[in-house]
Amino acid sequence: MNHLPPIGRKTWAIAEGYIPAWSNGPAPEFTSHEAFCVLNTSEEDAKIDVTVFFANRNPVGPYRIEVGARRTKHFRFNHFKDPETIPLGTSFASVFQSTVPVVIQHTRLDSRQAQNALMTTMAFPGAE
Amino acid sequence: MNHLPPIGRKTWAIAEGYIPAWSNGPAPEFTSHEAFCVLNTSEEDAKIDVTVFFANRNPVGPYRIEVGARRTKHFRFNHFKDPETIPLGTSFASVFQSTVPVVIQHTRLDSRQAQNALMTTMAFPGAE
Amino acid sequence: MNHLPPIGRKTWAIAEGYIPAWSNGPAPEFTSHEAFCVLNTSEEDAKIDVTVFFANRNPVGPYRIEVGARRTKHFRFNHFKDPETIPLGTSFASVFQSTVPVVIQHTRLDSRQAQNALMTTMAFPGAE
Amino acid sequence: MNHLPPIGRKTWAIAEGYIPAWSNGPAPEFTSHEAFCVLNTSEEDAKIDVTVFFANRNPVGPYRIEVGARRTKHFRFNHFKDPETIPLGTSFASVFQSTVPVVIQHTRLDSRQAQNALMTTMAFPGAE
Repeated sequence: MNHLPPIGRKTWAIAEGYIPAWSNGPAPEFTSHEAFCVLNTSEEDAKIDVTVFFANRNPVGPYRIEVGARRTKHFRFNHFKDPETIPLGTSFASVFQSTVPVVIQHTRLDSRQAQNALMTTMAFPGAE
Repeated sequence: MNHLPPIGRKTWAIAEGYIPAWSNGPAPEFTSHEAFCVLNTSEEDAKIDVTVFFANRNPVGPYRIEVGARRTKHFRFNHFKDPETIPLGTSFASVFQSTVPVVIQHTRLDSRQAQNALMTTMAFPGAE
Repeated sequence: MNHLPPIGRKTWAIAEGYIPAWSNGPAPEFTSHEAFCVLNTSEEDAKIDVTVFFANRNPVGPYRIEVGARRTKHFRFNHFKDPETIPLGTSFASVFQSTVPVVIQHTRLDSRQAQNALMTTMAFPGAE
Repeated sequence: MNHLPPIGRKTWAIAEGYIPAWSNGPAPEFTSHEAFCVLNTSEEDAKIDVTVFFANRNPVGPYRIEVGARRTKHFRFNHFKDPETIPLGTSFASVFQSTVPVVIQHTRLDSRQAQNALMTTMAFPGAE
């Protein structure tokens, strides 16, 4: 592998967030999920604090996650447990603060109806 | 929660806009909708003016919305009423001007056919 | 309406392009289409040259389109005719050069199967 | 065709990556695929090194691809063979390093269920 230039930012935000409350099809592939993918191309492990925002109460967090050096990892908000789980069918948003530059992308699979729907977007990058 | 650096911009635009004219499935989850999510990580409430653009007539607005400090809120264009409702099945676009930096993301759920379709993208950020 | 700050760029690109070759459902809403939305918040009409790129032959264009001052307009590549139509089921890409700053967003509705699928993203903005 | 200003970057990243493990509908249109589109508006051929990142092992690559001057080309990760194929149903991410500025967009078609789902986003551009 060639030496890769660093790519990404240390701060990211996703304004959309919603875990569909039910699913169709075999788990875990077709469990409705709200997910984000983190790519860490750097030579250092990324320690990332995720803060989750809600409509009617204070933000919750940080959820502490890690992505190894030169690794990618896909996370589902459905699996967040500490400090607390995220309720289904509720609007939220999220902010990510990483110790090293990473790239973050948002994806939802919604299988509440018989056929799944998908959507994705790059998260919004902070200034650095 | 850690102290969060400010993230976002005060001006945003969404060039796509269209409220599908009919729906399938239980309301309100499966009512076809054109939506945007606002994340306000700042310590001040965001007062946001939304201006809606059309193909063949002057822009309408501002629609005045608010998102509290350290809160997120998801809005549907379907619910806009003042100064006027947005007609279904019509092309429009929108510009957002906020008093504090926010992050804005665009999402559509189209349930005109029996199975819903989804799409999302970050809105386009202005220079500041 | 408040005075709006200018938003957008004069150059944009969409790397994905593909008009699905068939459709299900009533036209024109459910005709499979590859579309882009242009928002012109400026006080001047936007004259936009669209150049279409292909895999195995020279680019075609410019297709000349206009979007009035303070207007939005949604275009389908399906309707492009001059200098030539864009073949269905073929990969292409597009570049936009506008006389004034605009915002451009890419959307596809694919109704080749019984239920439509949707996708959208902001186009990629040029340096100015 | 008008002379086009250069548009794009030499480095891009896609944090999401997943080739759905099965498909419905006629191949190749409805084969589930993870794809990216490259637009090269420059007057020189683009030689692009793609590096693929995984969750639990070292990155693989470079995969060497080319896109001619003033051409676009759509690639499926499904077809990557050298140095090795990418396993189905596995999380990955990708980084692109091009000899000339290009624009890269990510698209997935998922036809694991009877009706296809689509998603797209611009890839994340590097600093240059």
